[in-house]
Amino acid sequence: MPSPSRSTRSRTKNPGSQSALRHLNQQRIIECLLNGPSTQAELARQTGLSTATVSNIVKIMQDSGLASTEPTTSSGRRALNVRLNSNGAVAVGIDFGRRHLRVVLASLSYHVIAEESVLLPLGHHAEQGIQAAVALLDKLLADSGAERTAVVGAGVGIPGPIDRRTSTVAQGAILPEWVGIDIQERLEEAFQFPIFIDNDSNLGALSEVTWGPHSGISNLLFMKIGSGIGAGLILNGNPYYGNVGITGEIGHATIHEHGLICRCGNRGCLETIASTTTMIELLSRGEERPLTPEDIVRKALARDAATLRVVDDAGLAVGRALGNVANLINPEVIVVGGPLAGLGDILLDPIRRGLVRHAVPVIGETTTLTMSSLNDRAEALGAAALVFQHAGIRRT
Amino acid sequence: MPSPSRSTRSRTKNPGSQSALRHLNQQRIIECLLNGPSTQAELARQTGLSTATVSNIVKIMQDSGLASTEPTTSSGRRALNVRLNSNGAVAVGIDFGRRHLRVVLASLSYHVIAEESVLLPLGHHAEQGIQAAVALLDKLLADSGAERTAVVGAGVGIPGPIDRRTSTVAQGAILPEWVGIDIQERLEEAFQFPIFIDNDSNLGALSEVTWGPHSGISNLLFMKIGSGIGAGLILNGNPYYGNVGITGEIGHATIHEHGLICRCGNRGCLETIASTTTMIELLSRGEERPLTPEDIVRKALARDAATLRVVDDAGLAVGRALGNVANLINPEVIVVGGPLAGLGDILLDPIRRGLVRHAVPVIGETTTLTMSSLNDRAEALGAAALVFQHAGIRRT
Repeated sequence: MPSPSRSTRSRTKNPGSQSALRHLNQQRIIECLLNGPSTQAELARQTGLSTATVSNIVKIMQDSGLASTEPTTSSGRRALNVRLNSNGAVAVGIDFGRRHLRVVLASLSYHVIAEESVLLPLGHHAEQGIQAAVALLDKLLADSGAERTAVVGAGVGIPGPIDRRTSTVAQGAILPEWVGIDIQERLEEAFQFPIFIDNDSNLGALSEVTWGPHSGISNLLFMKIGSGIGAGLILNGNPYYGNVGITGEIGHATIHEHGLICRCGNRGCLETIASTTTMIELLSRGEERPLTPEDIVRKALARDAATLRVVDDAGLAVGRALGNVANLINPEVIVVGGPLAGLGDILLDPIRRGLVRHAVPVIGETTTLTMSSLNDRAEALGAAALVFQHAGIRRT
Repeated sequence: MPSPSRSTRSRTKNPGSQSALRHLNQQRIIECLLNGPSTQAELARQTGLSTATVSNIVKIMQDSGLASTEPTTSSGRRALNVRLNSNGAVAVGIDFGRRHLRVVLASLSYHVIAEESVLLPLGHHAEQGIQAAVALLDKLLADSGAERTAVVGAGVGIPGPIDRRTSTVAQGAILPEWVGIDIQERLEEAFQFPIFIDNDSNLGALSEVTWGPHSGISNLLFMKIGSGIGAGLILNGNPYYGNVGITGEIGHATIHEHGLICRCGNRGCLETIASTTTMIELLSRGEERPLTPEDIVRKALARDAATLRVVDDAGLAVGRALGNVANLINPEVIVVGGPLAGLGDILLDPIRRGLVRHAVPVIGETTTLTMSSLNDRAEALGAAALVFQHAGIRRT
């Protein structure tokens, strides 16, 4: 059964250490404060922590700008009232794509303050993308009147696998120009505040449980169908990263053992059948210029027979791969996102047929399959949510 | 990176509730006490909890027999020393198979006190299995001189999917006679102490990180190859159960879309290619009586060519399914168990070839594949570990 709220506890690297314990205790205090300001004595009562522990943590939160205090009286005695600085502090979400960049500013109370996207040239270098992000963030801060010092950190989405042992983009990325660069280090140099990087599909998943209609879902898979196909996982209420950080590579599930060669070096991977690249190849024969994903959506909605068949074949293959995945991790919800989301049931129906055909019956019957409603904002919103996640702040 | 110790925190159903908070605080106290006896004041200092909170929880633990207290002096002042009753209290592990039953008794300090297995007739009814388990437990308690009142609970393994919404064995079980029975209720009636039920493959996974050589591994997959094929998952350091409790159904991954019909109703599932049932069918033609899994191990070790080929084909198919699984959840370790474990590298080599062929390169390179060393004890030991897991007691 889903847990009604998410927690970052199990991601603590060493649960027994003093700093991990302090982090855990700070989270519990923040969770209490998200219900409104509270006195230190009341925080101690609600958390079971000693007043000395509460007082120490509140001091640290005050120093880092996360909280402020003011004298008050409680039951006729002098007390210290603590409140979260949710209006002042700002989290940034940055989404780097093959040909776009989107930046959002969000308050710690989960309110989007400002948001803008710009186009980037195809094949741009990482440095070019980073400079564009710095400029766009400065513009958004100026427009919204927020101070740069109020930024507690930025989440950054990259469309490619990230090797968490080295914080670099691994081979197989949709952004080949970024492979091997220590993105986190480069971005921290450029921005001078804490940076948290993640894969775009992982951020899609985090976005769905943070900003989308699926808050409270403990086990969710977000599947992005684009030039590549990848999935992000929320398992037991937390983003799931596996051993080295490369998870959800469902685009490389083998569908046809003797199928086409894939860019990963294998044969017959789902991406060779169901990515927008493959659909565009199949549908652009005889066309003056290659189609775009938007063309596919437009033509399918206009009931073009060839487009409908290509989408149906792709959907069935995606559903087969998802059936095998659902058999393994039994998610409550599967959300499909990416540039074809506008297809709605034209794409969801064959995916559902494939899923039900290949999942064991009880899993086919109990898995909810739905299209993302966040569209092209999913990754940037998820990136901002990554900051809340690291700060241990959850939506109330 | 793996967490050095496991925690049940993220399984708390409602992290904000009072009882969940008490449970969390009790776990922290038990974690401290596993390092040795401690005064209440010291426990408060180590956990950051108030002395009143500590004193309440110690009282509850004392009432349930988990802990005992004795007066002492600390810095010249009177104090209360608390110790875990690890010698007195006992956890039971019960493993029901198609034709066997195994029971283990373990102390809360992870010491196996007694262990025995008996044969059950093929096609036995649930009631018959339960009565045999009651009798075998009574014998083990008598033999080892342990009191029945010292049993804090029993974990029970069933070779079939368990629908956690109803605590019943779901369709598709290797024990069809048990399908639809509320096992937990029936066992609690029979034993009169708390019962925790789980699937045999899940218990294999828990066993590997509890009793086996993989303690401290946060992301592990245990794959049982037997009459059926199933997997158990440890993710982010915790057993993973998904939405309705039916996970790891890797035996029903589609390998050949137009392959043989599987008992699940699909076609070309991994089980139709790589289960011991299929291997036995392939190798028993012309034999006077059907082979057993032990015969397969014996013949393969004697380098019988047909047996080696059947094992190789099965291993490649298993490896292909595991490659797709590893692409999704990026486990650190994959452990293969079940009655063919004695094949060693004869089975592991083709599995590894299939895994490396179908996984994306970095995942193929970084995933450790190994044979279980727990043999037929894995499930019963895992069942006992389920009790520690629920009591929040972890190995030190």
